[in-house]
Amino acid sequence: MRELELIKHIISRQSGQHPDLSCGIGDDCAVFNANLGEELLVTTDMLVENVHFDPSWHPPYLLGRKAISVNISDIAAMAGSPRFALLSIGMNHRFNNAWVKDFMDGVFSQLNFFGCTLIGGDTVKSDKLVFSVTIIGAAPKGNAIRRDGARSGDRVFVSGPLGSAAAGLQLFLDRDISINDYSSSLWPTLVRKHLDPTPRVRLAKLLGKNGSVTSMQDISDGIATDLSHICTAGRVKATLYSNRLPADKELYEMCREKGMDAVQLQLCGGEDYELVFTVKKEAVEKLRTEFRDQHRFQLYEIGVIEEGEGVYLQREVGEPQLISYQGYEHSP
Amino acid sequence: MRELELIKHIISRQSGQHPDLSCGIGDDCAVFNANLGEELLVTTDMLVENVHFDPSWHPPYLLGRKAISVNISDIAAMAGSPRFALLSIGMNHRFNNAWVKDFMDGVFSQLNFFGCTLIGGDTVKSDKLVFSVTIIGAAPKGNAIRRDGARSGDRVFVSGPLGSAAAGLQLFLDRDISINDYSSSLWPTLVRKHLDPTPRVRLAKLLGKNGSVTSMQDISDGIATDLSHICTAGRVKATLYSNRLPADKELYEMCREKGMDAVQLQLCGGEDYELVFTVKKEAVEKLRTEFRDQHRFQLYEIGVIEEGEGVYLQREVGEPQLISYQGYEHSP
Repeated sequence: MRELELIKHIISRQSGQHPDLSCGIGDDCAVFNANLGEELLVTTDMLVENVHFDPSWHPPYLLGRKAISVNISDIAAMAGSPRFALLSIGMNHRFNNAWVKDFMDGVFSQLNFFGCTLIGGDTVKSDKLVFSVTIIGAAPKGNAIRRDGARSGDRVFVSGPLGSAAAGLQLFLDRDISINDYSSSLWPTLVRKHLDPTPRVRLAKLLGKNGSVTSMQDISDGIATDLSHICTAGRVKATLYSNRLPADKELYEMCREKGMDAVQLQLCGGEDYELVFTVKKEAVEKLRTEFRDQHRFQLYEIGVIEEGEGVYLQREVGEPQLISYQGYEHSP
Repeated sequence: MRELELIKHIISRQSGQHPDLSCGIGDDCAVFNANLGEELLVTTDMLVENVHFDPSWHPPYLLGRKAISVNISDIAAMAGSPRFALLSIGMNHRFNNAWVKDFMDGVFSQLNFFGCTLIGGDTVKSDKLVFSVTIIGAAPKGNAIRRDGARSGDRVFVSGPLGSAAAGLQLFLDRDISINDYSSSLWPTLVRKHLDPTPRVRLAKLLGKNGSVTSMQDISDGIATDLSHICTAGRVKATLYSNRLPADKELYEMCREKGMDAVQLQLCGGEDYELVFTVKKEAVEKLRTEFRDQHRFQLYEIGVIEEGEGVYLQREVGEPQLISYQGYEHSP
C-alpha cells in the first residue's frame, strides 16, 4: 500500500471524534484542549521488526492491537485515561494491502475500546517495519501515580499472573506453534498474553482514585527490572516471596512439559503489562476487600518495601537473593 | 552507545524544565499542564536513514538539529509555540559515542533555542537509523492557523526563498561536496538550507496574532504540493506567478553552472521549511508594511486565490500550467 492510499484508508476508518479535539488528522498539527482540573500525560514507544515483534508469527490484526496496548499500558501505569494517539509507520512493499488493513483494524479496535482518537502520525518508507506510537492521556490533578513514592513498610502488589507473555513467546521461538496454528495451542492463555496483552486501564484509574497507592509501574521488562525502577526512584528495598507470585496454571503446565523454571519466567519475563504497585501498610486490608467486592479485581500481595536498596527474592528456604534489574531483552 | 548509557547521557544534558511540566523523563509518562486560554498542538515525524537523510554526508550535530527543526516547523505552520518534545531513536553500533553525543548536542541546541523541553522518548535497536520526534506546542485559543481557510480573492505569500534546500541536496547527490568539505562550498546558503533549516516560529506567531492570515502551511514537500493541500482543504484554486517566486541568488548561480531549471526547484524542491500562507486581499498592504517596518520580515506576495481547484503557474508568456501536487520525494 502506498503512503497516500494508507492515509486515505486510515482517515476512512476513523469513527467519531473526542469532544476535546478541535482539529484532527489532515493539518500540520492536531489541535486539542485540556480540561480544567486535569493533568495531561504523554508516552511514546518505538517498535522495530525482529527486535520487538516478528511479523512471521504475529498476525497483523493482533500486532496492531499490541502496538497500541503497550503504549496505553504506560498511561495506565500512571493511573490515567488514554485520549489521543499518534501512529507513525515505516514499511516497504513486503506488506500488502490486506496485511496493512488487518493491522489498522487492530489499531482501531484497541483505540476505540479505550475511547482514544487517532489524531496524527506519519507514513514513511523503511526496509524493516517500524511503528512509533505516542499516546496522550489525562488524569484528575493529583491522581497520577508516579514511580518514586514507595516507602518502608509499604506492601508490593501485582494485578495478575506473571510470566505468561514470556512463556507464550517461548512457544513461538521453539516453533511449537506458528502463525497458522497458534489458535489451537495447548496453552491459549500464554499465547494470547504474548500476542494480544490487555492494558489495565480500568483497574489503574480505580487505584489512582483510591489514594493509598504510593507508586506504580507497568510490567514491560519483567517484575525484577520494573520493581527495581520503583526501588531506585524511591530509594528503598523490596523483597518478593516466590510462593506468592501469581501465575496462570498454563505456565506451570508448560514449564513442567518443557523442563523450564516458572519462577524465572515470572521474575524476568517481560511484556505481561500487568501493574506492579506499592500500598501503604495500613490501607492494605481495605484496598483488597474493596477491590475484590466492589470492583471484582483480585489483587496479589507479593512482597514488602523496607529501608535499603535493591530487589530481593525470598524462596521458601535459604537466604534472600538479589534480583535487581535481572533484565529482559524484548521479544522476539 | 548502549541504551542505558544513551538515556543517562540525555538526562545529563537536560537543562532547566518548563514551568508547565510536573514530571519529565524517567517515569512511565511525562505529566504536564495546559494553561487557561490556550489550545495544545501536537505533531510527529519519522525520519529513516537513506530515505529522509544520509549520515554519510549529514554531520550528526546538524542532523540532530534538523530532526527537531522539521517538527517544530509543523508547530510554526499552525502559528504555535513549541513546548515539549519526545524523541525515539532506533540505532545500531555503527554509530559510536562521539556520533551520538554530537547528534544529541544538535537536538538540544535547537530545543533550547526554541524553549522546548525533552520530556520522553524511547531508545531501541535497529539496523538503520530511525528517529521519531513528537512535538507538543500551544497557541492562544483562536490563533492557530489551519489549512482550510483560503478564500477567493486572498493573496498567496511565502516567507522566504524557495528551492534552496533542494539545490543544496543536489550538491551532495552530485558529489560536488561531501561531509569533509561542505563548509567551503561555493554556495554555502544552499548547503546550510539543506543541512540545517530554520523553522519560522517567530514569524508564524506574529502571523497568528495578526488575524488576516486565512490559511498556512510549512513548505516541506515543495510549494506545488504544499499549496495544493491548502487549495484542496479550502476548495479553491491558486495561481502563482513565476517571476515573483523568491530565490536566493546562489540558486540562480548554481542552476546556471549546472544547467538546471531554477523554477522547477522552486516549485518542487522540498524541505525549505518556509511558510506559505494566504492573506485577505484588503489586509495585504497593511500586513506587508507592518511586517517590514515593525518586525523586519520581508514577505513575498507570489499569487492569488480564486474560485476553482488546483494550483497553476503563470509564466511570463503562455497559458497557466497546472502544477498541483508535483510532488517531491524526500531526500536523499
